[in-house]
This record gives sequence, C-alpha cells and structure tokens, in this order.
Amino acid sequence: MSAFTAEVIGTMFLIILGGGVVANVVLKGTKGNNAGWMVITTGWALSVFAGVVIAGPYSGAHLNPAVTLALAIVGKFAWDQVGLYIAAQMLGAILGALLVWLIYKPHFDTTEDSLAQLAVFSTGPAIRHPFANFFSEALGTFVLIFVILYITTPEMGEQKTPIGMGSLGALPVTFLVWAIGLSLGGTTGYAINPARDLGPRIVHSLIPIKNKCHSDWRYAWVPVLGPLAGATVAALLFMILQ
Amino acid sequence: MSAFTAEVIGTMFLIILGGGVVANVVLKGTKGNNAGWMVITTGWALSVFAGVVIAGPYSGAHLNPAVTLALAIVGKFAWDQVGLYIAAQMLGAILGALLVWLIYKPHFDTTEDSLAQLAVFSTGPAIRHPFANFFSEALGTFVLIFVILYITTPEMGEQKTPIGMGSLGALPVTFLVWAIGLSLGGTTGYAINPARDLGPRIVHSLIPIKNKCHSDWRYAWVPVLGPLAGATVAALLFMILQ
Amino acid sequence: MSAFTAEVIGTMFLIILGGGVVANVVLKGTKGNNAGWMVITTGWALSVFAGVVIAGPYSGAHLNPAVTLALAIVGKFAWDQVGLYIAAQMLGAILGALLVWLIYKPHFDTTEDSLAQLAVFSTGPAIRHPFANFFSEALGTFVLIFVILYITTPEMGEQKTPIGMGSLGALPVTFLVWAIGLSLGGTTGYAINPARDLGPRIVHSLIPIKNKCHSDWRYAWVPVLGPLAGATVAALLFMILQ
Amino acid sequence: MSAFTAEVIGTMFLIILGGGVVANVVLKGTKGNNAGWMVITTGWALSVFAGVVIAGPYSGAHLNPAVTLALAIVGKFAWDQVGLYIAAQMLGAILGALLVWLIYKPHFDTTEDSLAQLAVFSTGPAIRHPFANFFSEALGTFVLIFVILYITTPEMGEQKTPIGMGSLGALPVTFLVWAIGLSLGGTTGYAINPARDLGPRIVHSLIPIKNKCHSDWRYAWVPVLGPLAGATVAALLFMILQ
Repeated sequence: MSAFTAEVIGTMFLIILGGGVVANVVLKGTKGNNAGWMVITTGWALSVFAGVVIAGPYSGAHLNPAVTLALAIVGKFAWDQVGLYIAAQMLGAILGALLVWLIYKPHFDTTEDSLAQLAVFSTGPAIRHPFANFFSEALGTFVLIFVILYITTPEMGEQKTPIGMGSLGALPVTFLVWAIGLSLGGTTGYAINPARDLGPRIVHSLIPIKNKCHSDWRYAWVPVLGPLAGATVAALLFMILQ
Repeated sequence: MSAFTAEVIGTMFLIILGGGVVANVVLKGTKGNNAGWMVITTGWALSVFAGVVIAGPYSGAHLNPAVTLALAIVGKFAWDQVGLYIAAQMLGAILGALLVWLIYKPHFDTTEDSLAQLAVFSTGPAIRHPFANFFSEALGTFVLIFVILYITTPEMGEQKTPIGMGSLGALPVTFLVWAIGLSLGGTTGYAINPARDLGPRIVHSLIPIKNKCHSDWRYAWVPVLGPLAGATVAALLFMILQ
Repeated sequence: MSAFTAEVIGTMFLIILGGGVVANVVLKGTKGNNAGWMVITTGWALSVFAGVVIAGPYSGAHLNPAVTLALAIVGKFAWDQVGLYIAAQMLGAILGALLVWLIYKPHFDTTEDSLAQLAVFSTGPAIRHPFANFFSEALGTFVLIFVILYITTPEMGEQKTPIGMGSLGALPVTFLVWAIGLSLGGTTGYAINPARDLGPRIVHSLIPIKNKCHSDWRYAWVPVLGPLAGATVAALLFMILQ
Repeated sequence: MSAFTAEVIGTMFLIILGGGVVANVVLKGTKGNNAGWMVITTGWALSVFAGVVIAGPYSGAHLNPAVTLALAIVGKFAWDQVGLYIAAQMLGAILGALLVWLIYKPHFDTTEDSLAQLAVFSTGPAIRHPFANFFSEALGTFVLIFVILYITTPEMGEQKTPIGMGSLGALPVTFLVWAIGLSLGGTTGYAINPARDLGPRIVHSLIPIKNKCHSDWRYAWVPVLGPLAGATVAALLFMILQ
C-alpha cells in the first residue's frame, strides 16, 4: 500500500466512524439517538485508532493536514510530499462522508432537523463568534499537535513513536483526541483537522438530502485556518523548546 | 484445549457478555435498565476482549464466521477448517444465549415488551429497509475485517498479531468493535457476525418466554449475508492492496 | 510488604474505590448523584486496577476469596495459605468500607433511602429470587475466574501473567471486571467476591447511620456461596480442559 | 526542555483539558452541556495523560505539589528542587486556567450561574463541612500518592516506572485519577492537587467575568492542605512498609 493510498483509506475510516457516530447520535430513529457527548467523543477517538492502525506503517498515519504541516515545519516530513498527503486526506474524507450518508440514508430521510444533518458532515459553532471559534480550533489543534510532536520524538532513550508496540502504538493519539473532544470540543465541535471538516462539507453541498439546509460555507474557513494556525504555533514552540 | 473447543468457549463468552449487556439495558427491573448506548457498546467491546483472551492462543480467536471466511480468502486459514470453525462458533453462540436467558430469567418474566426480549438475542433494524440494512451490516463488517487483516499482518518489521503482548493483544480488536458499535451500530445494531445473530435467534425461537413474539426470521438473512459480503469485499480489497 | 499486608491493602483500596463509586451515585447531594451504570461499572473496574497494581508484586493480588480458592484447586496456590489470604481480604474489605463511610458521612446523613445506604456496602438482588440470584453470582464469578486462570497460564510460548508489563499487566482483569459489571451485573449487582460483600455488610451492621435499615443478612449467603461455587466450577473446567 | 519548563507546560495542559471539560459540562450552550460525571472524570483522567506524556521524560511529570512533596519525603526527589517544581506547577495552572477562560469566553458571557463559572476554575464541596471535606481531599490524595509510589518503585524484578513503555507508561496514573474521580470525587470534586485548585482560583479572582461571584477563598485551604496531608501520610506509610 502506498503512502497515498494509506492516507486515503486511513482518513476514509476516520470519517466513516467519526461521521458515523455523529449520525448515530443526532439523526432520528437511530439506536444511539441522543446518546450524548460521551458517545460522540469516544466514537471519534476510536475512529482515530482505526485510521492510525491501518495507515500507520504505510504513511505514518497523518490523516490530517494540520499534522502534515506541523511535521513539515519541524523537519520530520518532506515539504514536497505535503500536497500529495493533503490531497489524499481530502479524498479519503470525501469518500468517508459519502459512505456515512449511504449507511444512514433512511435516517437522513426521516430527520427534519437540517442542522443535525449538517452536523453529521461538518462542525459548527455552539455560539457563533468568529474570533473565539477560530481561537478554539487553533488551541485544540495546538494541544493535539504539540503532544504528537513529543510522542514521535525519540528522546532521552525511550522509543516513543505512536506506531510502536504493534497496534497499541495508536493509543496515545487516540486518548489525546478523546481528551480534546471531551474538554475543548464544547465550543466548536473540535474539527482540529481541515480535511475532516472541509471534505464532508463539500459532500454535504453536493448530495441530495431531503430538507437539506445550506452547508454554512460562511463558517468553513474557521475549521480550516484555525487548525493550521494551531499546528504552526505548536510546531514553532516545539522547535524553540528543542 | 483444541481449536474447536476454544471457538466454542470463546464465542460462548462473547454471547454471555454481549447478550448480557443488552439484557441489562433493555429488560425490566435490571440495575442497568435504560443505561444507554454507551453501556451497550462498551459491554459488547469487552465481551470481545474476554472471548479473544481465552480463545486466542488456541484457535486464533475468530469467534465469527466472517473472520474465518476472510482469513480463508486471503490464504491465512485452511479452507477445510472453515466448516469446523463455523460449527463451533454457532454452538458457542447457542450456549451463550441459553446462559443469558437463564441468568436474566426473572427479568424476562417481568418484561412485557417482546421486541426488547428479542433484542437480547438478535439484532433488528432501527428502520426496516432490506437494502440499507444489508449495506449497513456489510460496511460495519468490512471495517472490522479490513482492520483485522492489517492488524494480523506482520509487515514492515513490526509484530502486529492481535494476540501478541499477552492478553493486551486482544485490545485492538476490542477497540475496533467498540468503534463500530458506537458509530455504525445505529442502523441495525451491528451484528457484524453471522453466528452472533443466528445462534441466539435459534435459541429465541425454541425456548419458552412469557409474552414471546416471533423471532423475526424474515430479517434473519441480513445479519448473516451482510457480514459475509462485507468480509469478502474486505478480503478482496486487502489482497488487491498487497 | 508481606503477602498478608498486600492483600489487606489491595482489598482495602478495592473497597474504598468500589464502595466509593456506589456512594457517589446513590447517596444524596453528591457530585455524581444518579450518574448511572456506566459510572458504577467503570469505577469498580478501576478499583480492581488500583488494588492489583499495589498488591500484585507482593501477593499476586487475589483480593477475592473466590480467586484464592480457584488457584488452590488448580494447584497454583498453596492450600495452607488460603485461610491467611481470606482473612486478609476480609480485613481489607472491612477497613475499606469504614473509610467509604467516613468520606461520605455528610451524604449518608442526608440520605433517607436506607436501601441506597446499604447498597454502598453490599449487593442486593434486583428481583429477589434465591436460585436465580445464586446462579447469577456463580456465573459472573465463573466468567471472572475462568478467564483469570487462562490469563495466568503461560502457555503456547506467551507470557500471560496479569502482572506482567509493569502496572499495565493489571489491565486484563480490569477489563474483565468492567465487562462482568456491564453485562452480568444487572441482576444482583455482581458481588463476584465474598469478601467484597460480606466485609462491608458486617461494617453496615455495626456502625451507626441515621435511617439505617437491617443489613439484609437473609441474602448474605448468596454473594458468598455463589462466587465460591462459580469459582469451583471454573477451576474444575479449567483442569478438565488442560 | 528543562524540568521547570516541563512542569509548567505539563501542568498547563492538565488544566487546559481538566478545566476545559468542566467548562464544557457546566457552562451554558456548550456541546457537552450537562453531559454528566462520566464526561468530567474521563476528561480529567485524560488531561493527566496528556500532561504526563509531555512532561514525563523531562521532569518526571509531577504536575502536582502533593506528588513532589511525597517523592521528596520518601527520598526519591531532592528537597532543594521542591520549591522550583511547585512554582512551575502554580505557573502552569495559572496559564492553563487563563486559556480555558479565553476558549470558553462566549459561554462564560451567557452563563448566569456564578457557581458554575467558579467550578470551571476551582473545586467546591457538595456539602460544606470543613473536617469531612479535608478528610475527603486527604484520602483521595492518599490513594493517588500511595499507588504512584508503588508504580514508580522497581521492585521484585519488574520495571514499573510510569513513563516506561513509551507514552503508554502514562496510563496507570491516568486510570488512577479516573478511579479517584469516579469514586471519591463525589464529595469535594477531587482537587487532590493544590496547584490545580489554587492556581485557577487566583485566576478567577483576578479576571473580569460577567456575573462573577466571590472566589470562595474561605474554602481554598481545604484543597491545598488536604492533598498535602494525604500525600504525607501516603509517603510515611510507604516508608514504613518498605
């Protein structure tokens, strides 16, 4: 499996399971309807686990343009590969969102709440406030990236690659995303990944859904630029502290 | 312990704990009554953990005809053992369902909701829609099998057998089933395992339960053929990507 | 630390945290009041983690007369130490229950529900039915002990001691107790440990609590004999399958 | 990264994620509003994971004056470093609380409940009772410190440092804090860390928040002295048992 394929499939799994858990909680008539924030955050965390387990040995399992950018900034990833990785992540996110739509189609059909439908695809702010929402996405991504950079730095004699120890090496990032969702997801729904938000938003804007609302493109820049800003700050701080 | 015995006992434990958590949540008067989707999915995930820990070193802990089929397709399991394994899995699922019935008998007796009773044994669709339900079971099983195939492939220098690292090697599959339940279980209750659904459905059709409804045989093909289809696609995609 | 001290302290920690989580959920005015089955079962599972982490290297961390009995039956523990271990477990359980009472005293004082008060100390049946309750405790303990016996059997070339891998070796038993609570705890509250139930029941019968009810001694034999029966069956089946 | 910087950043992450999860649950209009005790305790546990993963290799990841004090008492940490570590922890806690305030600012603005606002920063008693509250904080911290001392003691031939095994070495402490929160947090909200409570309380007293109440300085000594007392007892008992 090439690195490109691994990023496509890994990100696709991330979105199948991540979008899936939101669908299960917010769409009408599902078995997990209204099951709450614990279910959503645990589902998203485990979707990272599944994606990283598959893609890890083949691409390093970035699955997130913010991760790719940060690793390039700190010199752990070749700049000329950044475009390829981001393209793969976008493609995987789009495929994943399409599959979530197909699997939950009967429930989309019976859900009148068009904002709930959109939430299956993309994040939205609890309180619309561009600066605060941007800051929220940036800080959540800062936490993610800063810890990832330390996890992947073999220093002081310890092996700390996230893909070490067989599949259990995917656990630290899993726990980290769980933490960010529980703690910092309350404001904007923690995209913390431009591909995770933009790819499915494109799908939402193109596919036919009964009662569909607009895809909130006005907000779309926040979960793209916020994570990239947070990742950049995390990478710079990491380099300063080295 | 022979591989046959290991598959019987492992699958029996899977169903004791998996059927048990549904009984705890849906039957009347239990301590976990109405405890929600988080409890159900965590209980099922941990039931996989218990089954894999016991059966792993003796049979590889398939516990699921879809796993056995996929491993045979990709050439990791002998075709002439497939029948034996599936027979063991069915027998284990039947024994497990009987034990769940016995342990929760006073609660079955006081539960009037006959669909809740059936739910302890077998899955059912949130919205009945044969094609969508089939697709849902197939996709959920695809995710399960595709990741399992990568977890069990020692590639690129890493040991990745699910039974490595002592009992903790059962964790990746546990987390994967947790993820699938949280995210993709909202439509059909994620059988993702023909034996898990068919074995207990046979038990439900045979045992006497007060207020018992029909065993919904009309739906029974979905959680059998859906998982087998998903497993086949996962195995083929895995072979293409090798 | 001697094995006796380790069993006392380990079981004390088990009950401080296990009784504590019940107090937090059922007593009046606590921060976790009415927080549900997920909180109770997760708290009990992690109480096992804490107890095993401390006692493991010194006593093997039985913390449960049913474990001690089963290990003696299968020949992994000296019969002449059984009495000492069980005495230590009872003493630890009594100390732990006293500490839970002290820490939650203001909440005991404001709780009028005397059965909720008792539930902090000992288990009780959801539906009173001696045979079914006994079977429930026996089966839950059977699952616990049978898996533990396999986890602690280094066979087929793998290291499988629960205390291997540093403190993370306590995880398999933790997950197992989590599973049993979620799935089989719905009927009797899963004592699955005679000391866990009898020790705190003795404390409940002796200490002064406002609005205290009787300590339900009529039921007390079930969570003692049920676990011992289940452990015996698990040990015998384990020996047959060797 | 120096030990001082590691303690600042690790404790900052602890409070960003720990304060963040409380904000998500108690402030108005968040996505996790009223999500319950499971969310709060899981978020706090994972905040420890994130902090320990970052700071572990550089400072040992105390992140808590009670840990620093206990390690000094038992002779595993130099007394002349204690002041430096505690200063770093206080600074990190203050920075973390400021960031939580900034990220959740729109939600602070719409929350009228001033006690909920305070709860994002500092703990408070469920029932105000100085002696019981002190005992509660002391016992919770005793459990934390006593287990940590055993986890970090390589004894009987096993490696048991919490930072072993790459980042997964942070798991035992994570699980322990999860357990303490679920089980012993019901009375006072488990500060079990003087810096975690005092640092954010200072921030609360200084920053402007609409509808802000007093910072409950009358209670502030409990989550400072209680943890220090519990840590001292744990350290002394540990030394006696050696």
